[in-house]
Amino acid sequence: MNEKVINNAWLEKAQRLMPELHQQKVYPEHIVSAVPDASAFQGWRIEPLGLAEQLSDQVLCKGDSVTLDFGEHLVGYLTLSLLNERSNADAPLRLKLTFGEMPCEVGEDFAEYSGWLSRSWLQDEIVNMDVLPGTLTLDRRYAFRYLKIEVVETSIRYDIRINDIYCMTVTSADIGAVPQLPEDIDTELLEIDRVSVKTLRDCMQMVFEDGPKRDRRLWIGDLRLQALVNYETFGCNDLVKRCLYLFAGTRLEGGQVGACLYEQPEPYVDDIYLYDYALFFIATLWDYFEATKDRETLEELWPVAREQIEIGLKRLDERGIVRDDDTWYCFLDWHEELNKQAGAQAVLIYSMKRGRSIAKELELPESEQWINAHIKDAEQAAHTYLWDGEKGFFVSGEKRQVSWASQVWMVLAEIMDAPASRQLLDRLMSNEEAIGMTTPYMVHHYVDALIMCGEEEKALEQIRRYWGGMLKDGADTFWELYDPDDKTYSPYGSNLVNSYCHAWSCTPSYFIRRNFS
Amino acid sequence: MNEKVINNAWLEKAQRLMPELHQQKVYPEHIVSAVPDASAFQGWRIEPLGLAEQLSDQVLCKGDSVTLDFGEHLVGYLTLSLLNERSNADAPLRLKLTFGEMPCEVGEDFAEYSGWLSRSWLQDEIVNMDVLPGTLTLDRRYAFRYLKIEVVETSIRYDIRINDIYCMTVTSADIGAVPQLPEDIDTELLEIDRVSVKTLRDCMQMVFEDGPKRDRRLWIGDLRLQALVNYETFGCNDLVKRCLYLFAGTRLEGGQVGACLYEQPEPYVDDIYLYDYALFFIATLWDYFEATKDRETLEELWPVAREQIEIGLKRLDERGIVRDDDTWYCFLDWHEELNKQAGAQAVLIYSMKRGRSIAKELELPESEQWINAHIKDAEQAAHTYLWDGEKGFFVSGEKRQVSWASQVWMVLAEIMDAPASRQLLDRLMSNEEAIGMTTPYMVHHYVDALIMCGEEEKALEQIRRYWGGMLKDGADTFWELYDPDDKTYSPYGSNLVNSYCHAWSCTPSYFIRRNFS
Repeated sequence: MNEKVINNAWLEKAQRLMPELHQQKVYPEHIVSAVPDASAFQGWRIEPLGLAEQLSDQVLCKGDSVTLDFGEHLVGYLTLSLLNERSNADAPLRLKLTFGEMPCEVGEDFAEYSGWLSRSWLQDEIVNMDVLPGTLTLDRRYAFRYLKIEVVETSIRYDIRINDIYCMTVTSADIGAVPQLPEDIDTELLEIDRVSVKTLRDCMQMVFEDGPKRDRRLWIGDLRLQALVNYETFGCNDLVKRCLYLFAGTRLEGGQVGACLYEQPEPYVDDIYLYDYALFFIATLWDYFEATKDRETLEELWPVAREQIEIGLKRLDERGIVRDDDTWYCFLDWHEELNKQAGAQAVLIYSMKRGRSIAKELELPESEQWINAHIKDAEQAAHTYLWDGEKGFFVSGEKRQVSWASQVWMVLAEIMDAPASRQLLDRLMSNEEAIGMTTPYMVHHYVDALIMCGEEEKALEQIRRYWGGMLKDGADTFWELYDPDDKTYSPYGSNLVNSYCHAWSCTPSYFIRRNFS
Repeated sequence: MNEKVINNAWLEKAQRLMPELHQQKVYPEHIVSAVPDASAFQGWRIEPLGLAEQLSDQVLCKGDSVTLDFGEHLVGYLTLSLLNERSNADAPLRLKLTFGEMPCEVGEDFAEYSGWLSRSWLQDEIVNMDVLPGTLTLDRRYAFRYLKIEVVETSIRYDIRINDIYCMTVTSADIGAVPQLPEDIDTELLEIDRVSVKTLRDCMQMVFEDGPKRDRRLWIGDLRLQALVNYETFGCNDLVKRCLYLFAGTRLEGGQVGACLYEQPEPYVDDIYLYDYALFFIATLWDYFEATKDRETLEELWPVAREQIEIGLKRLDERGIVRDDDTWYCFLDWHEELNKQAGAQAVLIYSMKRGRSIAKELELPESEQWINAHIKDAEQAAHTYLWDGEKGFFVSGEKRQVSWASQVWMVLAEIMDAPASRQLLDRLMSNEEAIGMTTPYMVHHYVDALIMCGEEEKALEQIRRYWGGMLKDGADTFWELYDPDDKTYSPYGSNLVNSYCHAWSCTPSYFIRRNFS
């Protein structure tokens, strides 16, 4: 078995930085029905049937069901107060509760779920209540806007009435801390910013979670982007610090930073190592320092950052190029056919450049020079072996694949000057064969690349097109996955299990607040 | 709506008498399988597969299931400690747990349940666990010996192992208080007594429940018999007192003692009034006084007892006979065709005689004389209108039905001398057309009647035949229903919902300890 690298002092430091959770009681707004509608997003439309206040007048018999719309995406704990009607509850009550972030989740039958991620991510419960009138607070946390309540069993003597129902939401984000945007900003951007902030808020719990429905875990790819948005909004910088110490405190064999962490029952790193994700520890640490000037943390965690460069360099072949293979060694994006080699090479260069900044800040000239030499080699190798002058693109893998991910990351790695980068991205726009982008995570990097080479207008256009598109399709919080051309897209075999409040999708606020306001 | 009669002082007194629950940790004994077997009781046999200690070596994958035998009937709370295997639990775990008092409950599919009592009485749960390794204690109390655990969902990355599993049993009975039986008693009676005591113990919770699986309520018909066994065994007499004050403290319109009470969310009487059950308040009070000599309680609750006589007498017609009808006005036994008139008349007389004893004890000559006059009238009316000299039986209802219930209750009401009673019961034995008995509750009264008229040997024979029969059919605790000639008998349309630990079936200990040891 792999020998994990544990630093208990760092884990204890992380645990001392545990945030307080802010709570808020939220009541449902409407009684609704999820109606199949081919013209609606994913084929489901929500039809209002009445105000939620009318709920307590409604007698529910065995076989009845009611769907509630809480008006916004929530993360929290459900409490239900129920009354028996007609006569005493002479047998337990059995309810089925189905929580949905999206209409499809309360519309479709989970029994027909056929994705390859566990069906247990779908949020439904069978609950039995022995005593009525009674109040039930469910133990588990749910992420939802819609709740379907089905009365599975009563008895021949009684029916029920829902006397009270609410969600106690939880977040470690401090809503009051978010700076107001200037008044002259347009409504669409205001709305995109609002939903971005809400997305981040719902993902901010005891750690920066990737998604509060799924996976509810701390992934470093998400963390890096969440931290950037957080610096511009909530400023909960200690939560970033906590997450950095968690990643540093529990690592994989050989000191690799893991791709994700579990917080419970106690913090531990998952077995997944991803080439790009491990390297992102460096950028996340540097970004944190830039935002906070917390030099003590920078110094303490620098050895972990430097080690990630050493580990990353070990994967270079004799040409100085990242060794490619068929396994899930690097993430970049959820595209099945995407070859990761060129993107990985670019992420290595991108990360070494952040590492060099840290070394410089900490006045470690030897490290700085050592990194600098490797940057030059890696850039040179990329130009020599990955650049296809004929095609005018960076190519990846044996089959010399051209993809958006490869070009975007080469731009972010700044291995060309800005005009060359602009031209590369321009060419990409008109190349129909390049492997496209499938996640907001990848689109974020595209927008970032556009800004990096001075194409601010195009960047804003992309934000309006992509995140504005989600808004038009009904997003309360931004989604893990969104393909404007295939709205039921899921890399998991079912869009029911997609996360519809997903951290890596919250970055428009970062751009809007830094570049567009 | 009915206006209930509440006496808060009495309810408070009852609440001050709340018992302490004794807890005990019980671990499973065997891994087993429920196997269909036409020759076994109700068609299911339990086959041992291994020792429960081997459970923690067993890796359970999605789709696997394991059935555990805890070795005895339990009432309590389940705790499960689970480990993830192979890799981390990267998705919630979903289990189905099915608790069974009997093999049929873990053998048959609840989806096919077709009884008319709510399916919610069947004890199964779907539970989701977000964190592994983890420990889960279920909120609800279960009554079971067998537990089937089905692994409904894991993920492609992990399996599970059951690290620890136990039931924390609860009872308000004090096991240490039960007097030892003399050493010369035979093994069968010892075993019948042991199982009777165990049955009562498992039903003794915050009140005397009828059955810890179903209905988990305080019924006065059960209470009366439980109290009798309790005086001979646990001696938890304050629990009887508590139940008397509960019945007195929350009554139906006009002061009727209800047939049953709910203890939660706060004590309240159910809407059900049964002629015989209301009258049993008197016998239960008198028995309590005889066992405890608690004159204060006898005095305080006497007005309620006297009122039940007044209420009972109101149902007499101009002949002095209980008015018959088709509704569920009197219980006696679970036989669908049983006419209740003659039995009700007998229960009235039986109860008035206990009321007369109380009046005498409390030196209330007016009450005593008043009751005495009514006893004479009711007995006279029974002899005149319900006795069929030709048939040699008491008859009931317009159709002049002959039943065991009518004869047994007339014997218990002592409206004949002992020789006449003996002859009546003898004749009954050889009458094949009389409506028979279906519950241990009715068989208890038959045994009691035999003893009352001096037929102790026959009484013992009945105990060995009936409760001994249950033992041979595998009873750990005695059952709500047992028909030796129809072993899947249920008045509820499915034997899955029968209670297999039922208070009214625990009375052999009363007879064994009073009459046969």
